[in-house]
Amino acid sequence: MSAKIEVGILGATGTVGQEFIAELADHPWFEVSWIGASERSAGKAYRDATPWRLTVARPEAVADMTVERVVPGNAPRLLFSGLDSSVAGEVEIAYAEAGHIVVSNARNNRMDPVVPLMIPEINAEHLALLDRQQAERGWSGRIVTNPNCSTVVLALALAPLRAFDLQRVIVSTQQAVSGGGYPGVASLDILGNIMPLIRGEEPKMETETQKILGELGGDGITLHPVVVSATTTRVPVINGHTELVSVELGQSVDPDALIGAWSEFIGRPQEEALPSAPPRPVVYLTEEDRPQPRLDADRDRGMTVSVGRLRTCAVLGHKFVAMGHNTVRGAAGAALLNAELMRVDGRLD
Amino acid sequence: MSAKIEVGILGATGTVGQEFIAELADHPWFEVSWIGASERSAGKAYRDATPWRLTVARPEAVADMTVERVVPGNAPRLLFSGLDSSVAGEVEIAYAEAGHIVVSNARNNRMDPVVPLMIPEINAEHLALLDRQQAERGWSGRIVTNPNCSTVVLALALAPLRAFDLQRVIVSTQQAVSGGGYPGVASLDILGNIMPLIRGEEPKMETETQKILGELGGDGITLHPVVVSATTTRVPVINGHTELVSVELGQSVDPDALIGAWSEFIGRPQEEALPSAPPRPVVYLTEEDRPQPRLDADRDRGMTVSVGRLRTCAVLGHKFVAMGHNTVRGAAGAALLNAELMRVDGRLD
Amino acid sequence: MSAKIEVGILGATGTVGQEFIAELADHPWFEVSWIGASERSAGKAYRDATPWRLTVARPEAVADMTVERVVPGNAPRLLFSGLDSSVAGEVEIAYAEAGHIVVSNARNNRMDPVVPLMIPEINAEHLALLDRQQAERGWSGRIVTNPNCSTVVLALALAPLRAFDLQRVIVSTQQAVSGGGYPGVASLDILGNIMPLIRGEEPKMETETQKILGELGGDGITLHPVVVSATTTRVPVINGHTELVSVELGQSVDPDALIGAWSEFIGRPQEEALPSAPPRPVVYLTEEDRPQPRLDADRDRGMTVSVGRLRTCAVLGHKFVAMGHNTVRGAAGAALLNAELMRVDGRLD
Amino acid sequence: MSAKIEVGILGATGTVGQEFIAELADHPWFEVSWIGASERSAGKAYRDATPWRLTVARPEAVADMTVERVVPGNAPRLLFSGLDSSVAGEVEIAYAEAGHIVVSNARNNRMDPVVPLMIPEINAEHLALLDRQQAERGWSGRIVTNPNCSTVVLALALAPLRAFDLQRVIVSTQQAVSGGGYPGVASLDILGNIMPLIRGEEPKMETETQKILGELGGDGITLHPVVVSATTTRVPVINGHTELVSVELGQSVDPDALIGAWSEFIGRPQEEALPSAPPRPVVYLTEEDRPQPRLDADRDRGMTVSVGRLRTCAVLGHKFVAMGHNTVRGAAGAALLNAELMRVDGRLD
Repeated sequence: MSAKIEVGILGATGTVGQEFIAELADHPWFEVSWIGASERSAGKAYRDATPWRLTVARPEAVADMTVERVVPGNAPRLLFSGLDSSVAGEVEIAYAEAGHIVVSNARNNRMDPVVPLMIPEINAEHLALLDRQQAERGWSGRIVTNPNCSTVVLALALAPLRAFDLQRVIVSTQQAVSGGGYPGVASLDILGNIMPLIRGEEPKMETETQKILGELGGDGITLHPVVVSATTTRVPVINGHTELVSVELGQSVDPDALIGAWSEFIGRPQEEALPSAPPRPVVYLTEEDRPQPRLDADRDRGMTVSVGRLRTCAVLGHKFVAMGHNTVRGAAGAALLNAELMRVDGRLD
Repeated sequence: MSAKIEVGILGATGTVGQEFIAELADHPWFEVSWIGASERSAGKAYRDATPWRLTVARPEAVADMTVERVVPGNAPRLLFSGLDSSVAGEVEIAYAEAGHIVVSNARNNRMDPVVPLMIPEINAEHLALLDRQQAERGWSGRIVTNPNCSTVVLALALAPLRAFDLQRVIVSTQQAVSGGGYPGVASLDILGNIMPLIRGEEPKMETETQKILGELGGDGITLHPVVVSATTTRVPVINGHTELVSVELGQSVDPDALIGAWSEFIGRPQEEALPSAPPRPVVYLTEEDRPQPRLDADRDRGMTVSVGRLRTCAVLGHKFVAMGHNTVRGAAGAALLNAELMRVDGRLD
Repeated sequence: MSAKIEVGILGATGTVGQEFIAELADHPWFEVSWIGASERSAGKAYRDATPWRLTVARPEAVADMTVERVVPGNAPRLLFSGLDSSVAGEVEIAYAEAGHIVVSNARNNRMDPVVPLMIPEINAEHLALLDRQQAERGWSGRIVTNPNCSTVVLALALAPLRAFDLQRVIVSTQQAVSGGGYPGVASLDILGNIMPLIRGEEPKMETETQKILGELGGDGITLHPVVVSATTTRVPVINGHTELVSVELGQSVDPDALIGAWSEFIGRPQEEALPSAPPRPVVYLTEEDRPQPRLDADRDRGMTVSVGRLRTCAVLGHKFVAMGHNTVRGAAGAALLNAELMRVDGRLD
Repeated sequence: MSAKIEVGILGATGTVGQEFIAELADHPWFEVSWIGASERSAGKAYRDATPWRLTVARPEAVADMTVERVVPGNAPRLLFSGLDSSVAGEVEIAYAEAGHIVVSNARNNRMDPVVPLMIPEINAEHLALLDRQQAERGWSGRIVTNPNCSTVVLALALAPLRAFDLQRVIVSTQQAVSGGGYPGVASLDILGNIMPLIRGEEPKMETETQKILGELGGDGITLHPVVVSATTTRVPVINGHTELVSVELGQSVDPDALIGAWSEFIGRPQEEALPSAPPRPVVYLTEEDRPQPRLDADRDRGMTVSVGRLRTCAVLGHKFVAMGHNTVRGAAGAALLNAELMRVDGRLD
């Protein structure tokens, strides 16, 4: 136990912060020893600072901790950030300047050219960008980010298709309300209804995907040339983003080859057997009415993206459905996997 | 009152049958005088044959009628068919052979080359196909059909865009459960969930759209060359199909021109002021988070398709959201409009 | 048009305020000429001050009005108040002191002994309390209130049973989210879930019912002795509060007598044919699976309470289910009926 | 592995049957070696016989088994029955006559005076009724039953209160759709709606509770004298029955004593540390807005009933909210616990 690495949670009272605490409860390498949140919560016991809203029980050890103010200094070196984007940008940079390693789920620093935007199965080598942060930003610490929840699902479904010259993508999402935080989406807006707009979401899917799939060279990341057009909507589902995807490939390829590419796809997390890694990051479901968020979001503790319904698209060539757990694979679990990869790469030493 | 045209309802106990009865309750031209359903219901008073499942009250006059067996003969000449597709094909043809005019919502006869597949604002002239039914099928009666519910919404949104050389379309639907009839979709399949499959729905959208938008010539309908790729899903919404549409046009056109085309679009129903015609079949909503099924499905008693969120699609050029009431504009109201058009064209005489 | 009475709306941007505006759109006696809301909205056109969230279209006449600050003075004499309870108490009294007649839906002044708490079918004579307001409070204006939404449904179901010596009541509610305002209930709290607590709601049902059913005497209202025990919960329903009621009566009575009492129950609104009055304030539904919010909430434009499932209660004697539209009969429609009663009683002159 | 007791599943394709298979997947004592279902499924591989509808993955070992016809003979001695009540009565008796031990979730044989109706924490000694089955029914096998899902939650909440002279109870339920099986409740009946009727459910709660809480004597079970009045409704929740309970006790007792009684309540399953036993069968939650099905149904793998909101009931004395997982504690898990108790009592030898 004493050998575990102490970690802190920035934004510990929010939805993503709670998810971090839940997933770290029995982690073999990391142990939560510090929790930070806004002034409103600081000084309170965690159990009094916020109602717990997850179905898994709140870890007792954390319930008794005192919530700290979010100011660089007394926190552990390694921090998971579930901060709201209204404050995350500056706060995370302040921590990085003060020598902390910030593993962030916030959008603010994702597109910074010296900040890796990671999905470890896809672009583990992008971690090398971290070496530029001291030189180009003067940070004694580091910032590493994971993508937006809807981007994670799309990027994992697309990554195995790069082998077939991935060119253009049209994606429509049906996103769960947990992605909107708490209180987040008003019940009057979503009960028996569809919200056809998630503000700011579509550009994130279109640009983050290019960075994630991009190649690391001497000058940083070269964006992948894939053109993505996204329509993002909110649906009355608690967990699990469903994405309807049409893709255009430069190569003629039969369906079995695509299914094979998804099924065989693995990366560093699987090779290293990282604690949060699923056996396979993508599974193809052969049942004709899958994936479904209610039945498939929790697959492999929420870390697997499920793909199904591969068919011919009369316009772009191929179409399919992808679905993944937005607060696990799309948020807290993604950040955890990033930290685990950093450890085996010696970047937490 | 005595001057009203008597009509019968085939499949009067089903979801669409109930919708027919509700919409005909105060119709200025038509009056329900006969209701037919399966053997199980025949002989019972309508009030005892089926629970009423609409929010509008069941018309008392119909509640007391006796449900008849569905056998050509004693029914009125004009019949609205909400029959299930498992029986609709043969039954409707039998009625047409016996001299009845069948205004059908069922899918079975829609793609028959001598059967008009009508959206009166789009293709009123297709009614001329009816003249071939006697010669080529030997029917002394007639069959006219309206499209599948999801096709109606799409076709109305696309029709005004034909002027700009409509070429390719990718559409994803989020369809309401009322489209599945009763008992239809199981609650365990849809509560807090998305069903990524509606069996048989995608091909209907892809082919029906071409026929609806097609041109009538000497040899019948020439299909419109638009290529449609559809992904259809079921969502936990009671009424209102939402459709996310990307379109490729042969002409370069700015967004205002598209909005103008939708806003100015009218057809025979508006020119003739048919009782069920909305003021405009398509409205463009400028609020950035519309259309929504809960707020917009009932617009103009459910007969208007709402369009919104027109944006640039990085892949096909333009994208937008369309939404319409699936059991009104997409089913019973569509059939009613067909019958009204037939009357002003003298085809009910 | 010129003969209509001008009215203002306090809290015009909120959920109840929107409902007031919708219901007053075509009112034969009243016409909205002034709308007031918080500082944040003041000075804006109504269409820009708040998104419209009702399924009926926003009246164009009101959309163009400028939202005024809520300060006694330039507003019309007659005001409907949909103010939030955090401010309603003091603001309404300020308006009453300034000579306005405030018809309020807020809870703050309901239990004031000189303020009538009205359901016009039950206690029209309680309006006489208004005469005390000048003497005892010094108000040149007046305040009249309607009950909490869940109380309205219960009180209307109980009022006809007073004839049988109504003694004790246990009621469990399943309340719609529209009762919580906007943004109100968070979707994460209610999607596929039950919230077993509505803060402050149970005491309101228990005490307001006694005042509504009470008798007016020389000293004001004598509370009705009925003992009510309420459990109130929130359910994933948009409109319509369902209430499961067990009652103990002092008299032995057979079920038909109870059904007769509900069915024959009418009051001043029906006798005077007030514009918002339903034909019968309570209807008993004989179908064994009714009332249901989806099918029955809109009955008679939402002004009728539906009762069903009368059975023997092994503990208290009788039990049944009651259901009514919480934002119409339970809020805006209730206030409108109060104002209409005041007019025919000459209290608006 | 070889030491495990082989068990069969009657009704293996249904909702409860699937739950049995899931819960037995890693059971330390039992192993599924035989699955039976209706003629329609017999002869097929289980994976082809029915779509799997649970969020936990289908055990691969069972997926490959062939579904057998439900006829006494080749099945293992110990059988779990998730048969539909339309057939369960006769089939289970036939198996008991043929020497099988049937651990049943069906309602048919529950109220038979020689059939134990078990909740092992409450009435473990009722197993002794099994000894009468040979003598009075001539069965060489046995039938043991668990209660209806809504009864389990109520009985566990009431059992600890027997110490205070439990007299009368009024309970209103809000039951999840998974209790209705598949396809079960139609989505049009429950999306955004409340169904105020569950056919046949109320009498089950009222009578089963008396048997469960009853005392075993020389003449069998003496029913507990508690009078229960139940109103049962269906709500749009997937798992977790919420029950609003008012109780009348013969003794005056303060709230802390009730909370103490719940918190200290344990029984044979806890004493014997049965594999499916939760640490405590009832927990009292102090948060004012709990229990909630979404947050609390899965507590201790679904085997714990959560109680909260204890308050004074102005009519009966005390009121509270109870909630439990209907397909686990209320069905498959209940049966499993029965079988486990039988084993430690030597009744499987």
